[in-house]
This record gives sequence, C-alpha cells and structure tokens, in this order.
Amino acid sequence: MSRDMNVFDTFDIAIIGCGPAGLSAAINGAIRKKKVAIFGTDFCSPKLHHAPHIDNYLGFHNIKGEELRQRFLQHVTAMGLKISQSKITGVYPDQNGFTLQSRDKFYAAKTVILASGVSTIKPIEQEIEYLGRGVSYCATCDGPLYKGKKVIILAYNKEGLEEANFLAELASEVTLVSQVKEQDAQGIQLDKSIKVVNGKPLRIIGEIWATGVALDSGEIHADGIFIIRDSVLPDQLVPGLDFSTKGIKVDRTGATNIPGVFAAGDCIGAPYQLSKATGEGQVAALSAVKYIDELKARS
Amino acid sequence: MSRDMNVFDTFDIAIIGCGPAGLSAAINGAIRKKKVAIFGTDFCSPKLHHAPHIDNYLGFHNIKGEELRQRFLQHVTAMGLKISQSKITGVYPDQNGFTLQSRDKFYAAKTVILASGVSTIKPIEQEIEYLGRGVSYCATCDGPLYKGKKVIILAYNKEGLEEANFLAELASEVTLVSQVKEQDAQGIQLDKSIKVVNGKPLRIIGEIWATGVALDSGEIHADGIFIIRDSVLPDQLVPGLDFSTKGIKVDRTGATNIPGVFAAGDCIGAPYQLSKATGEGQVAALSAVKYIDELKARS
Repeated sequence: MSRDMNVFDTFDIAIIGCGPAGLSAAINGAIRKKKVAIFGTDFCSPKLHHAPHIDNYLGFHNIKGEELRQRFLQHVTAMGLKISQSKITGVYPDQNGFTLQSRDKFYAAKTVILASGVSTIKPIEQEIEYLGRGVSYCATCDGPLYKGKKVIILAYNKEGLEEANFLAELASEVTLVSQVKEQDAQGIQLDKSIKVVNGKPLRIIGEIWATGVALDSGEIHADGIFIIRDSVLPDQLVPGLDFSTKGIKVDRTGATNIPGVFAAGDCIGAPYQLSKATGEGQVAALSAVKYIDELKARS
Repeated sequence: MSRDMNVFDTFDIAIIGCGPAGLSAAINGAIRKKKVAIFGTDFCSPKLHHAPHIDNYLGFHNIKGEELRQRFLQHVTAMGLKISQSKITGVYPDQNGFTLQSRDKFYAAKTVILASGVSTIKPIEQEIEYLGRGVSYCATCDGPLYKGKKVIILAYNKEGLEEANFLAELASEVTLVSQVKEQDAQGIQLDKSIKVVNGKPLRIIGEIWATGVALDSGEIHADGIFIIRDSVLPDQLVPGLDFSTKGIKVDRTGATNIPGVFAAGDCIGAPYQLSKATGEGQVAALSAVKYIDELKARS
C-alpha cells in the first residue's frame, strides 16, 4: 500500500463535520470567497435523516428530516462545494496555520472550524492517558514507528481492518481485536499473518508507555496499540483545546482558546438544535474569514 | 376615544419583534406548547424584503429575500401563530412575570424575548435623560397625568398624529411638531384645538423636569412632552436592561441581566445575519421555556 504523505491540499478554512453547523459554515465561507474544505462522513447527519418531521427550522414547516438533509446537501453542492470523506485524525498548528492529518494525506489550512457534533464515543479506560505514549489513532502516521515491532489494533470499523492489513506490512506481529459486525467487514481479506483475538477491550495497560490491552477475555501485549473508530474526540483531535462542562469552550464569535480554531454546533454545547447549529456555523465561518483577512493585512 | 387599559391578554412568552429571530423564537416556543405572543410591524423584516438574493441560509440556495420572508411568515401562520401590531412601549416586571404596555392595551407574560433588531432611531439630545421626568413615549399611559395641562407631541409617524388628537381631549393645550410625510398622514383629521408648529426637534430642555423642546426654528414650552416613533429603543423599553458595546448583553442561553427577559438576533450584536438570528431565536425560546418550567416546578 503506497501512501504519499507529502501531498498537501491547502485551504483557507478546513471544516471538520458536515452536519448542519459544518454545512452552514461551509456556505458562509464560500460566499466570502474563501477556499473551503469539508471533512465529513458519507451521510453527514444521521440525526437529521432519522427525524420523522421537523417543524422548528424557520422556512420549512412540517418537513421530513431526510428531505431537509437532502436540501442542505443540495445547497452545498449547488455552491460547488464537495465533502471529503478523509477522516481527520489530528490538527496541529504550524507556521502557516494548521496541518490536518488524515489516514492517507495531509492538508494545510489557515483556519479550522470544528463542527463534529456530539460524540457518542466512550474511550476505553486509560486510553486518553496513553495517547501519544504507545496509543495512536492513525496507522499511516505512526505505523512506521513500529517497523519490526509488535502492534495491537483495536478495530471498531471496516477501516480498522484495512489498517490491520497496512500494519501487517510493517510490524513483526499484528494482533487484531475486532469489534466490527460481520456485515460491515465484507470485502476485506485479512492478511494471513494477522493474529485475531476475540474479546472486548476494557483498559490500556502499561507503565510510562502502553504495553498492552486488558480484554474481557484476558490480557494481550505489544509495543504499540492502534485504536480505529469512526471519529476522533475533539480533545484528542486538537491538542490543547479547552473544554467546559458543555463542550468545546468558545466565545461569542465561536473562537476557541487556540487562535485560528473555531467551533460550532452540538460540539460546543446544548441545546442540540438545528437552527442553533446553522447559526453558530455561520458565526464561526465569518469569524474565520475575519481572522484570515486580519492575518493577510498584517503580512 | 375609549381605551380600556384593564384588558389583559396573558401569555407564556411575549416576543418583541417579528424578524427572523422573533419568528424562530415563536415557532420554537409554540412547539414546546407555550402560549406565544408576537409583537411586530405589518412587514416584519424590511431588510429581508429588500435583499435581491440570499445564499447563506442553509436549505435555500439563491432565493429572493422577499420569497424567504414569505416562507418565514407562512411557517408561522401554518403553526397557528398571529403577529400583533400592537406597539409595545414598556416592559415592567411584576409579581407574575411582566406587564407589557402598548398604546391601547396591557399584556401579561411570564417571559419576554427581545428580538427588535438594530434600531436606526437616534434619540434627540437629552431625550433619554428626561424620560419619565416629563418625557413619555406613551400617550395612553401617561396622558391622564397632563389633564388640564400643556403638552408637546413630537410625531414621527401617523400614530403620533392620532395621539395628538387623543391628548387634545385631555390637555388644556396640545402643540404638535410633526415629522410625518404628507402621504403618510392621509386620513387623519387633526383636532382644531391643536397648535401646529413647524421645525426639527433638536433637544429637550428643562431643569429637573423637562419644560420644552428646542427646535431648529426656536423653543417651545409645555408641562409634558410625548415622543411617538415606530419603535422604542430596547434600553427605554425595558428599564434596567444591561448593554455591552455590541448590543443587549446576554449569556450563552440568551438570558439578559433581568430574570425572565431573553434576547436574540441583531439586537444582541453583530454579525447581522439570518442564520445567526434564527439560531439565537431558537436558543432564547428554549431558555424561556426552561425558565417557565422551573418557575412552575417551584410553585
């Protein structure tokens, strides 16, 4: 598997999430002539899709959730915007703004808008504590560190199985603990060298560095542990991001504690509502535009 | 003219303003089964009406402003809500919540949402300083205080001319300074006793109490001065309301410094944008609902 990590696409505004907040941010950024990237899933808003009918988004009375989801996506498409399904695993500041790391590519952006919704992910015990010390969310990024060593991969989706195959090319031993349902794993042929262990991951074990995983079926050990899920919690996505009890901490302009990083929608707190989300997406986008224009004026 | 100031209509949520923030608040309050009053103008959102096309309200790509305004009003109407054109001139706390004073009626409400937009009104010099000390915005409310006395009325709209006629029944002398355009004054027959003075009001004059008005054509004097315009500035509408440099001061829930009073939209600050306004209207409504439910739980 060849992955060219030197390929950089550069943007003014990188938006993480394609629910109502992310899409509203995207159209507002585009109207202000900024180059916008949207990173999302293939579905964008399952919550919207599942709503039987929606009455509280002004302008659409008694509309089906799925119909409104389509209207939102049509709006974005009509404005020439595309949604990338690259999963961003890390956002790191650099001298030009930010580097966004995905499974197989880097992106550069002057500003970032987090619109990742409310996460239903529950990290396993000690996972966050060992992140960067033997625990990683990105096989492409950190896989090479484990060349000739032993790794464990905890796979919560199909991508996790693919990453196990990728790691099998590098590591001396790959142990896979899969939580993927059979129907979701279709089309994946696991490398024969991969050791499959059944069990439910309970806890990362180790001392200064992680050395293994406690499963409900026993302990397994390795030099590195990869955890692959559908999304990454914002506090793990952007190192140093401040949180309140409600969610990502923002001011009235949608600015977080990290200059150039803004946030909108459910990830900044309740009420988890459509108009609130689109409004905050708009505000975050306009704040990002202002931030970029001020940077430009200074340089 | 008979005005029964004892008639009270009572509501859970009284919304002042029928632009996007006010209407979004209204539908959200109604969905939560609250009795909602909307106080607005006959047009609700001239800004929307004048927008040639709008691209940044998610779900409607390239829509005419007037078409979107119609969609908003249709939504509200479809939910059985009506917009009252009673002009609220004062909001006062009482033991059951708030009394809202209009030209010819009182309303009672448990909570108030201010969504009055950005005001283009410029008060004349010393107007705010003398408010309640010889200066009034409400002839019905304060007219009786000037029975047998001299009053000046500064009329900026047709209603001001009607109020001059009303005051002519009470006061010993009514001096009218009209800023109303001839085409807007049609259908009004001024009482013969009214003394009409030409000129542009510049400043309220007086000592502890107001005693007159300085016009560009000279000074006029009276015991009381009534100023009648299309809308009332929020700081004069709700005594004791806190402001920041951006507008009405609110927290993340849309709550102002006065318990039970919430605010949303342009009146709480820039950016003056559609999605921001509807989002804030939604948040303010849900906060008002929560406030009412907590009151109920306590009683």
